[in-house]
Amino acid sequence: MEKMDHRTDYCGNITAKYEGQEVTLFGWVQRVRNLGNLIFIDLRDREGLVQVVVNKDSGEELMKIAESLGNEYVIEVKGKVVRRSSVNPEMKTGEVEVNVSEMIILNEAKNPPFEIKNDVEISEQTRLKYRYLDLRRPTLQNAIILRSKILRAVHEYFDEHGFIDIETPILGKSSPEGARDYLVPSRIYPGSFYALPQSPQLFKQLLMGAGFDKYYQLARCFRDEDLRGDRQPEFTQIDMETSFLDEQGVQDYTEGLLKKVMKDVMNIDLPTPIKRISWQEAMDKYGSDKPDTRYEMYIHDLNHIFKDSDFKVFSGAIANGGYVRGIAVKGGAEAYSRKKIEEKQEYIKRFHAKGLAWVKYENGEFTGPVSRFLTKENQAALKEEFALEGGELLVFVADIWKVVCDSLNYLRRAFAKETGIIPKDVYDFVWIVDWPLFEYDEGLGRWIAAHHPFTMPDDEGIKLLDTDPHKAHARSYDIVMNGDELGGGSIRIHKRSIQEKMLKALGFTKKRAYEQFGYLMDALDMGFPPHAGLAIGLDRFAMLLAQKDNIRDVLAFPKNASASEPMMHAPAPVADQQLADLGIEVEEQYAESVAQTEQRLEKEAQEDADKNATWED
Amino acid sequence: MEKMDHRTDYCGNITAKYEGQEVTLFGWVQRVRNLGNLIFIDLRDREGLVQVVVNKDSGEELMKIAESLGNEYVIEVKGKVVRRSSVNPEMKTGEVEVNVSEMIILNEAKNPPFEIKNDVEISEQTRLKYRYLDLRRPTLQNAIILRSKILRAVHEYFDEHGFIDIETPILGKSSPEGARDYLVPSRIYPGSFYALPQSPQLFKQLLMGAGFDKYYQLARCFRDEDLRGDRQPEFTQIDMETSFLDEQGVQDYTEGLLKKVMKDVMNIDLPTPIKRISWQEAMDKYGSDKPDTRYEMYIHDLNHIFKDSDFKVFSGAIANGGYVRGIAVKGGAEAYSRKKIEEKQEYIKRFHAKGLAWVKYENGEFTGPVSRFLTKENQAALKEEFALEGGELLVFVADIWKVVCDSLNYLRRAFAKETGIIPKDVYDFVWIVDWPLFEYDEGLGRWIAAHHPFTMPDDEGIKLLDTDPHKAHARSYDIVMNGDELGGGSIRIHKRSIQEKMLKALGFTKKRAYEQFGYLMDALDMGFPPHAGLAIGLDRFAMLLAQKDNIRDVLAFPKNASASEPMMHAPAPVADQQLADLGIEVEEQYAESVAQTEQRLEKEAQEDADKNATWED
Repeated sequence: MEKMDHRTDYCGNITAKYEGQEVTLFGWVQRVRNLGNLIFIDLRDREGLVQVVVNKDSGEELMKIAESLGNEYVIEVKGKVVRRSSVNPEMKTGEVEVNVSEMIILNEAKNPPFEIKNDVEISEQTRLKYRYLDLRRPTLQNAIILRSKILRAVHEYFDEHGFIDIETPILGKSSPEGARDYLVPSRIYPGSFYALPQSPQLFKQLLMGAGFDKYYQLARCFRDEDLRGDRQPEFTQIDMETSFLDEQGVQDYTEGLLKKVMKDVMNIDLPTPIKRISWQEAMDKYGSDKPDTRYEMYIHDLNHIFKDSDFKVFSGAIANGGYVRGIAVKGGAEAYSRKKIEEKQEYIKRFHAKGLAWVKYENGEFTGPVSRFLTKENQAALKEEFALEGGELLVFVADIWKVVCDSLNYLRRAFAKETGIIPKDVYDFVWIVDWPLFEYDEGLGRWIAAHHPFTMPDDEGIKLLDTDPHKAHARSYDIVMNGDELGGGSIRIHKRSIQEKMLKALGFTKKRAYEQFGYLMDALDMGFPPHAGLAIGLDRFAMLLAQKDNIRDVLAFPKNASASEPMMHAPAPVADQQLADLGIEVEEQYAESVAQTEQRLEKEAQEDADKNATWED
Repeated sequence: MEKMDHRTDYCGNITAKYEGQEVTLFGWVQRVRNLGNLIFIDLRDREGLVQVVVNKDSGEELMKIAESLGNEYVIEVKGKVVRRSSVNPEMKTGEVEVNVSEMIILNEAKNPPFEIKNDVEISEQTRLKYRYLDLRRPTLQNAIILRSKILRAVHEYFDEHGFIDIETPILGKSSPEGARDYLVPSRIYPGSFYALPQSPQLFKQLLMGAGFDKYYQLARCFRDEDLRGDRQPEFTQIDMETSFLDEQGVQDYTEGLLKKVMKDVMNIDLPTPIKRISWQEAMDKYGSDKPDTRYEMYIHDLNHIFKDSDFKVFSGAIANGGYVRGIAVKGGAEAYSRKKIEEKQEYIKRFHAKGLAWVKYENGEFTGPVSRFLTKENQAALKEEFALEGGELLVFVADIWKVVCDSLNYLRRAFAKETGIIPKDVYDFVWIVDWPLFEYDEGLGRWIAAHHPFTMPDDEGIKLLDTDPHKAHARSYDIVMNGDELGGGSIRIHKRSIQEKMLKALGFTKKRAYEQFGYLMDALDMGFPPHAGLAIGLDRFAMLLAQKDNIRDVLAFPKNASASEPMMHAPAPVADQQLADLGIEVEEQYAESVAQTEQRLEKEAQEDADKNATWED
């Protein structure tokens, strides 16, 4: 690497290898300790801290400058690197310090609204308003840098494997299916709108139709959904598509990519091939299509034990076509009081569970409310089923399949977390394969595509499209890590006739199908290759590797939980002329609140100006 | 590279090195020649063509399949690579052919609306409507692949030099300054809008404030401007920002980047350092702040020759503070008739030139309309000034500075192109430095920032901000190649007081300054480092390297000249519910045209469905 500036190295890199050398450093004042004839300064940059020392012997002027320093001042120092008398083993640079011979204040700093250190109790609103300060905290800097390393590994990997990086449009077409689109009014065609893409799905398929063979992109995607902790209005996906490959081919490339990311970013050797389990097995064993496979605590089906039980909650559920399933929590007998278990029972009501049955197994005996219903045979069967050793808490849910799965998935994760059985620093990947092609959406009251409408059914599924489409299985696959969905993909439909049947099964009329996807169906008729792909959610992946709880911590400038950004104030009212140019109006009912927002922002600006501005109008 | 599929290699790579081997290929049928007992097929993929041969001896079934092939069918073939009897030196694979033993039709193809070859006369609208076919043409594929190679080199370069790849938001804040923003209505705050970024300028500056030290991004940017040939509503810039570097430092990194791109993508060794000329010199010598330096044909100032001329057009312009400047076109005396010259005179009226004076110098004599005004002294001075050898056409423009520059810039480029003096395959880079800080915008009738309002004035300029701001010079720099601006950058303002003076000089009131940029000015007070950066327009750069005339040719899915996309039909009317969710309405006056568009799209969809769909509703 050429040297392009007169900085010797980053502060955080000034180790003993520089001993005896004159160095030039730039950085931020983290802390000043003034001992009268000696001033110690911790100087910080993105690579870390180094101690620099100003000595009374260096002259009065230098001491004066050093005395004037405040936290977060930006300075340049020149000086000699010397061994410290007392080594600080906590710091990478702790063996040395810099004896300053020259110091320039490049910029002063007002007292920041919060201290720049990792652990600091500040509201998210304040963090986002002063994001440039928040991002100075090493923990956030490291998260952003880690994300950058993932990007780097992704680019390298795909380039090495002959993928072409192709940008697809941000100004696209609205599609009423799926999540809500962000719209962009057109000025040239007033009353028409672009939409920001929810994914480049059809563009990347068309690129296969165009013969690019292997495509990838770090694709910006947008969804106007109500936000949750791990959602943002805009997100980035590692997007790939290939021609002439089957599931195995796409999964092989994906595994190669993950292996490289884990190695380059985390220095972890990811063993491959990654295990595969069917969607059905995942649901049965973990209650989830994104199972956390770092620990066992499997869900057991207990229908064979309880189908004739006197406990009508159990036998009744089974008789109605439902299930009794349960998990055994090791050490749970002691760890969980009745009260704590009842809290869990309360919680799973959101999954429509009617109750949570439980027993404890201690000293060879079953206790707890349901124990009196357990026959000798039931007891023996449970002991065998769960290989009980003593000290277990057993919880059971008896209900229809979905309620059982959802409830036990929650309980399994909660008990695992609380009993501390989740291994640290383990990254456990699993492929979930053999998905249903459709799923019934209770909210919408209709069948929707489990993956998306362009997913190829399996051979049996293609036949079922004509007769019983909703039983079809899909050639799709998800990649899951530690109980989080990292991404997913599928073999795509490359024949018009199958695509049409798929849309029909989704309830499209012919006209609507052609309005939305006519160009795709035309394209499929003009020499479209078999193709398949996958997309990985970069933000979540980065969050998990950075061991953060919130996606906002791996984004430089995220939106808050109500999709706004309190530093620049986005979104905000705009000038009337801007709307007039676009031929749109804000509905009358919102006029007052818009005016209020405008006034508030103006008032804040005026106050800020009055307080801080150095100029008079 | 691991092998993840059962393709042996791309068609275009099947050279003699595969002789004697059994290969498996996928591709598109480019052409079929049926000789009765022998069928030759040109098979195409992204890497090129290979000839595959089906022989009657291979069996009737295989012949039948081969006979059924049409252009653009997608097929898989297995066969043995053998030497051709007649080598085709035009093809990379021309020494061999593949004797097919197995052939599978993976997808059929209707007759495409145009042939897939480089030179084909088709309307742009048709090209964009069937973009997936258009992109199959090798010339476009190569342009997209070249663009991808630039991206690759950029990522590699910045990573090697410690830059961090950081994504900034697409959903940002509208700023009434500069070009028109694309707006995105907020659903959560009806009546408020996000704006798509015209550049990540302030975000990247804030990243320097956050201490990331070196940032880069392939940044998607948006401008709702009236389109020209080389403009698109969305574009990508190679965006960088650094802390603690001066002009030289940023320019060094830029030169390193350009060197790598030219080497990796074009296999050209770019000599560095790249020459630097001042903005003033560029304007005087080339009439342009983005001079084409591949050839000379400099503009000469002729005031010293003509200040006392009897030709009042000349002496009068000079007396009024204007200029007489001209260029000499070698061989122009013969090449340009009076009519042709008058066409040019007509053209430069758009630059407000009142006329075009000209003489020819042949056989030691000046001829042409202005020659009678040339004194002996004038003639001698012109001969010396332009080192005339005979055969030149001299053209003069006499006017105010701007008109002279604009007109002669146009004339210089036109004459250079027409007389064929522009060297082929030369990429000539130049830095334009020492820019004015402000420029007067005739259209707006006010001073605007020549670069942008965050550009640092030079030391003298900082003083001038208090007294005579519009005379200040900027610490900004543009990088120009072959007469096109590739990019530009500047040292940024890192002090509140200077930023305030700058905004004041731009006509901001204090309140408006703080409404728009209060957060920035706050940030500058909290330990902001000196910083500088640059951005390069990727699309134009790729277009120039790919030797294309239009930016659309280096974008996979561009918009047409009216910012619409005729394949998916974007922009388009949206569902009423979508607008209701956002609290906006389309102005009444556009209702009819929106309804018409909707009806047209529905009708087209219905016709398409009726014609092509294989299913009945």
